Amino acid sequence: MTGTGTGTRTGTGKVCLIGAGPGAVDLMTLRAVEMLKSADAVVFDRLVSPEILALAPAGARMVPVGKAPKCHTVPQDRINEILHELACDGLTVARLKGGDPLIFGRGSEEAGYLAARGIAVDYAPGITAAQGMAASTGVPLTHRGLATGVRYVTGHRARDARLDLDWQSLASEDTTLVIYMGAANIAEIALNLMRAGLPGSLPVLAVAHVTTPREARHISRLDRIGTDMAERPMPAPVLFVLGHVVSLYQSAPLPLDLPQVMAGE
Amino acid sequence: MTGTGTGTRTGTGKVCLIGAGPGAVDLMTLRAVEMLKSADAVVFDRLVSPEILALAPAGARMVPVGKAPKCHTVPQDRINEILHELACDGLTVARLKGGDPLIFGRGSEEAGYLAARGIAVDYAPGITAAQGMAASTGVPLTHRGLATGVRYVTGHRARDARLDLDWQSLASEDTTLVIYMGAANIAEIALNLMRAGLPGSLPVLAVAHVTTPREARHISRLDRIGTDMAERPMPAPVLFVLGHVVSLYQSAPLPLDLPQVMAGE
Repeated sequence: MTGTGTGTRTGTGKVCLIGAGPGAVDLMTLRAVEMLKSADAVVFDRLVSPEILALAPAGARMVPVGKAPKCHTVPQDRINEILHELACDGLTVARLKGGDPLIFGRGSEEAGYLAARGIAVDYAPGITAAQGMAASTGVPLTHRGLATGVRYVTGHRARDARLDLDWQSLASEDTTLVIYMGAANIAEIALNLMRAGLPGSLPVLAVAHVTTPREARHISRLDRIGTDMAERPMPAPVLFVLGHVVSLYQSAPLPLDLPQVMAGE
Repeated sequence: MTGTGTGTRTGTGKVCLIGAGPGAVDLMTLRAVEMLKSADAVVFDRLVSPEILALAPAGARMVPVGKAPKCHTVPQDRINEILHELACDGLTVARLKGGDPLIFGRGSEEAGYLAARGIAVDYAPGITAAQGMAASTGVPLTHRGLATGVRYVTGHRARDARLDLDWQSLASEDTTLVIYMGAANIAEIALNLMRAGLPGSLPVLAVAHVTTPREARHISRLDRIGTDMAERPMPAPVLFVLGHVVSLYQSAPLPLDLPQVMAGE
C-alpha cells in the first residue's frame, strides 16, 4: 500500500482515535478538528457527516469502513489491519468515529491491536450522543431529586444472541438510563425493565439524528415506547432516554424549527 | 446592575450554559469556544482553568462563583440570581462549568430558574471528566467482554447526610463505574460496593486533575483504594474508575511525562 496523503511519510506513522461527536460539526473538540486537519488518511464510519469529513486535508486518503446495522460492512479485523497498514506506510491516520471513541464503538479494540504492534495511538474524545441530546433538548442527564447518576448501555445484540443485560441492576429509578443502538429491541428492553421493577409510567424520550438538522423527538413512557416505535418507527440512529429527568422536557427551552411528535399523556 | 461587557445590551440578554470540559483547553468544543468568545459576562466555577478563561473577550465582566468543596462559595440561589440579573441587563452571559453542564454541576437547575423567568438558555456540551480520563489513559469506558456499559455517579454528600446510593444496583460487575467527587468518601463507597457483591480484586484507577499538566494516576483495587487514599491522598478533584476496563491500563499507550504511582499487585 502506498500513501497518497499530504504529510510526512518517513518512518512509522501513528493513529489518532478521534471522536466526531453526536452530529453537529461545532460539537467536535478543538483537538479532534486539529487531528483531523493534520491527517494523511481518514478511516471513517458511516455515521460521520460529510460536513465533518470536509475538514480533512484535500489530499488525504479517505477510507470508508461502513458500520451500518445489518448492512454489509468492513469486518472489525479488517479495519484493524487497514489502520495498521496505513500507519506502517508512515501515514498519520485519523480514525474517525461517531460520538466518543472509547464509549461503545470498539475504539479500545483498535487501540489494543495497534499498541501490540508498536503503533502509537493518540486520542481525541468526543461528545457522546447522550450529551448531544441533553444540549439539544435541555433534558439533563442528572438532576437533584430526579437522577443521582446516569448510565449508558447498548441495546444492540449480535445476530440471534439474547440481550444480555443485567435487568435488575438497570431497573434503578434514580438513575437516568440512556440506551444506544436500541431501536430494534426497545420493546423487549422496556418489557424486561418493567418486569424488573421500573414503573410503566416512567418517561421516555426517543431522539433520532441528535444535534443534526434532521433531529426528531418523541416523548412516551416505558409501557408505550415499544408500541410507539412499532407504529411510527424513527430513522436510525435513535437514542432512548429513560428516567424522571425526561419530565423536565416540557419546561425546557425548545428550538422552534424541529419536528415535534408528542404522544398523549 | 449595569453592564461592562462588549456586546449589545438592548433588550433582554441570554445565558449560555457552557461545558468547559475536563481541563485541557483543546478538549473544549468549537461551540463552547464560540459562545465564550461572544460573551459580555462570564460566570465561572473554581475548576475552570485560567487558560480557558483567557478565551473570554477582554472587556467581558468576569464573575467567579466558587464551588470548591468545603470552602465558602456563592450559594446556588445567589448564582441563579446573578445569572438572571446579568441577562435582564441585556448581557449575553457565559455560564462556564467544568465538564458538561448537564452531568452533575446543577446546570439544569440554573436553566429551569432562568426559563421560568423568560430568559433564553443555550447549551454547549462538554467532555466530561470520565471521557477525559479515557482519552488521557487509554482506559476505555466500555470494552467488549469487560464492560457492556458505563455509569457515572457522584460520591459527594451534603454535609452530614448519608451516602444515598443504590449499592445493589451499583454492584454490577459488567458496568464501568465512574465516581465523581468521591475522594472524601471512597473508603465507605468501596466497602458498600464489596458488601453488595463486587469483588475486592476489582481494579480501580484514581486520576487527579485529569487532562491537565498536573494529572496524576494511581492504580489500586476495590479492597485497597480506601487505605491507599488515606495514606497518600491525591489533590482534588479526583475521579475514580472502577471496573475490569482498568485492567487494560498496563497495555495502554502511556504518555511519558506524567507522574505515575503504581500500587503493588
